[in-house]
Amino acid sequence: MSRGRGNLDPKRVSSELFTLTYGCMVAQLLKDFDSPDEVNKQLDKMGYNIGVRMIEDFLAHTPGTKRCTQFEEVADVICKQGFRMFLGIVPEVRNWNAAKDEFTLLLTENPLAEFVELPPHCTDSLWYSNIICGVIRGALEMIQMEVKCWFIGDTLRGTESTEIRVKFVKILEDSLPAGED
Amino acid sequence: MSRGRGNLDPKRVSSELFTLTYGCMVAQLLKDFDSPDEVNKQLDKMGYNIGVRMIEDFLAHTPGTKRCTQFEEVADVICKQGFRMFLGIVPEVRNWNAAKDEFTLLLTENPLAEFVELPPHCTDSLWYSNIICGVIRGALEMIQMEVKCWFIGDTLRGTESTEIRVKFVKILEDSLPAGED
Repeated sequence: MSRGRGNLDPKRVSSELFTLTYGCMVAQLLKDFDSPDEVNKQLDKMGYNIGVRMIEDFLAHTPGTKRCTQFEEVADVICKQGFRMFLGIVPEVRNWNAAKDEFTLLLTENPLAEFVELPPHCTDSLWYSNIICGVIRGALEMIQMEVKCWFIGDTLRGTESTEIRVKFVKILEDSLPAGED
Repeated sequence: MSRGRGNLDPKRVSSELFTLTYGCMVAQLLKDFDSPDEVNKQLDKMGYNIGVRMIEDFLAHTPGTKRCTQFEEVADVICKQGFRMFLGIVPEVRNWNAAKDEFTLLLTENPLAEFVELPPHCTDSLWYSNIICGVIRGALEMIQMEVKCWFIGDTLRGTESTEIRVKFVKILEDSLPAGED
C-alpha cells in the first residue's frame, strides 16, 4: 500500500472509530506475535512509517511554523500543534533534564486508549499506544532530527499517568537539508 | 481488549492519521493471511465488532432518531447520520430494487482509501474498505435488523465508483426488543 504526494484536507473522523480500529489492530498484532515486546516493536515501526508521511502534511497545514533552533521549541511544536492536529489533544511538557535534551510528554487524555482494558498477560509488558512513539520518531527524522522516544508510564498498565519520554540524539547531517526559512 | 460502557464525547481525530493507521492494519492482515479473500473476511469481522459497539454511542449522540419502520428510512439514517458522524462523509443512496429491500451506497469520497494504492496481486480480489460492510452489519444487528452488505465496486480496483450494496434479510425476532420510542 503506498500513498502518493499531495495535501490531505484537514478532515476529521470520529475519535471512537479510530479508537476501535486501533484496538483491532493491536489485538491482531497480539495474535500474530509471540510476545507483547514484539508487538511494542511492531507498533513503533508502524508509527515510524506513519510519522514520515504525516510530517509533510503537518508542515503544509502549519505554514507559519519556523525551523526550531532549540529542542524546547520542538517539544512545544510537537504538543501544541502536532498532537492537537492529529489527535485533538495537547499533552503537557515536563521533567526536562539539566542538559535540556530530554523531556516528558504527559498525556492527560489518550484517544487511542479510551475505554481499553489490556488482557491480563499484557499488563506489565505491552505499551498499547506505542505507535505514538514511532510517529514522533519518524516525523522528526524527516526534519533531520534523530530522537529516542519511549513510554515510561501508561494508566492502562496501572501507573498514575500516561507519559512518553523523548530524548534528542543528534542532528542528521548526512541527509539533505530540509530547506531554509 | 475490551471496552466498557459509557458515552464517548464526540471528539475527532485527523482523517489522515486514521487513513494511515487503517492502511497499516490492512497491510498487516495481508501479511498474516494467505489470500485477499481471507483478508476481506477478517476486515468484515473486525468491522462487525466495531459496529456492535458504535451503535450505542450513535444512538446516544442522536437522541432524536426514531425507530425506522421502513428500510428506506434505515438507508437515510445510515448515510445522513451514521457516515457523517463517524467518517465525515455522506454517501448517496441509489439503485433501490423493486421490493425496496436492497439499495446501493455510493461513496463519492472514502477517507479510508485516500491516496491508497493496492499492491498488484490484490487489485482484483481485495475489498480494501471492507471493514465498512462489517460496521453496517454489526450496528444494524444490534437494533434487531439482519442485513447483508458487500462492496460491488471500488475505485481502488479500477471501477468507476466505490459502491456498497445493502440487502435487508430479516428482523431478528428472537432477540430482546431494543425498546420503544
